[in-house]
Amino acid sequence: MVRNIKLKISYDGTQYHGWQTQLNRATVQETIEQAICVVMKQKVNLTGSGRTDSGVHALGQVANFTADTNIPEEKIKIALNSILPNDIRVIDSVDIPIEFNSRFDAHDKTYMYQIYNDNVWSPFYSRYSYFVPVGLEIDKMVEAAKHLVGTHDFKGFMAAGSDVKTSIRTVYETKLIKENQLIKFYINGNGFLYNMVRIIAGTLIDIGKGTKSINCIEEAIINKDRTLLGQTAPAQGLFLMNVNYNDR
Amino acid sequence: MVRNIKLKISYDGTQYHGWQTQLNRATVQETIEQAICVVMKQKVNLTGSGRTDSGVHALGQVANFTADTNIPEEKIKIALNSILPNDIRVIDSVDIPIEFNSRFDAHDKTYMYQIYNDNVWSPFYSRYSYFVPVGLEIDKMVEAAKHLVGTHDFKGFMAAGSDVKTSIRTVYETKLIKENQLIKFYINGNGFLYNMVRIIAGTLIDIGKGTKSINCIEEAIINKDRTLLGQTAPAQGLFLMNVNYNDR
Repeated sequence: MVRNIKLKISYDGTQYHGWQTQLNRATVQETIEQAICVVMKQKVNLTGSGRTDSGVHALGQVANFTADTNIPEEKIKIALNSILPNDIRVIDSVDIPIEFNSRFDAHDKTYMYQIYNDNVWSPFYSRYSYFVPVGLEIDKMVEAAKHLVGTHDFKGFMAAGSDVKTSIRTVYETKLIKENQLIKFYINGNGFLYNMVRIIAGTLIDIGKGTKSINCIEEAIINKDRTLLGQTAPAQGLFLMNVNYNDR
Repeated sequence: MVRNIKLKISYDGTQYHGWQTQLNRATVQETIEQAICVVMKQKVNLTGSGRTDSGVHALGQVANFTADTNIPEEKIKIALNSILPNDIRVIDSVDIPIEFNSRFDAHDKTYMYQIYNDNVWSPFYSRYSYFVPVGLEIDKMVEAAKHLVGTHDFKGFMAAGSDVKTSIRTVYETKLIKENQLIKFYINGNGFLYNMVRIIAGTLIDIGKGTKSINCIEEAIINKDRTLLGQTAPAQGLFLMNVNYNDR
């Protein structure tokens, strides 16, 4: 029987050239598709909720595929994890109505950008954070992040050459937490443009350092101007935390 | 002026063949000695508080070396970190009396063994923990670990073929903490035999599973018998946390 299977996936992106399959390069999508092929003896096409870049991590990426199989849903997770490398884990595998599409049905996503703010970087966070060894004014960063919330044209917040139909996105919530040396910036929205979260993170860091003003985010929204914002923060600090759907 | 410099070092041991220099293999000691050579233009011999095995990590390894240099003590840390790979960081660099020896002057050390106890391993802990997907009776593990405390002949707690003058060691304290999926076993003592902490960790896991009795540690001390104990738990769960000295 042909079924639609939804997977929740966690991965350390360090060793992968991002999510999406590319010729002659290890990607997360292809690695999982190959594992499914071994388990189910059939080629499948795994649809992710969206791409993640080279070096970006995920705690709760969502993907789905259709396959003709009798393996019980909860056993799919176990079978795939027995084949996948340790830096990719399937956290959950469930049957979902055949019309479900991980990408088009996604309602909102949360990303987290992790900053390591101390005078020496920890070896245990060098794969998982961006090292900022100077003092940051957290209050200013929190204040500036509030200007992101709402439905805006984020044209100024994307990498040059991005090809999208519309650059209007809705940000529902932002949150910035400091836990010892770690500063974690969470952003939840209905979708994100290419490099949008990394540009926001880089800008917030510059605001924390005092090299950009609190108002630069508001101004960049109004003027749709990338040059008003800060650097694009590096990939290894970025985590796709979860993807929410209306139904389940 | 010839000075004796003490370093506190943190490293992710995944990519190294342990602490001690070996022919044609990357080791932590050699990597740091090479960085010192670049900074100070002289060959030095770095003495660590003790070896760590291939794949074992450190949060607070201590080492010292003598060198003829005028670089201020706090600048040595900065200079070395600018050259070292991100998986090795010098946390502290200080001048210490010329007669100080990291190995022979160590008073006590603390190791931590980290277990990931859930049904799916996290990709972010696969380099830093041992995955145990079955239920563990924590109370039994805590109870059993108490029998380690004291001055005992730990002959049964070392890898076969170890060449040591005496297998008598003193364990000052043990502690076992559960934080969500992580179980952290801390052990502090005046010294540890080859594989001793990993044999203890493996035995505690077997006790938690119920395949070894709480008394097996006591019996192995009395009978000096390795076969009464559990497996040697894998290297990647082990962390050298700190090394204490009487003077500073």
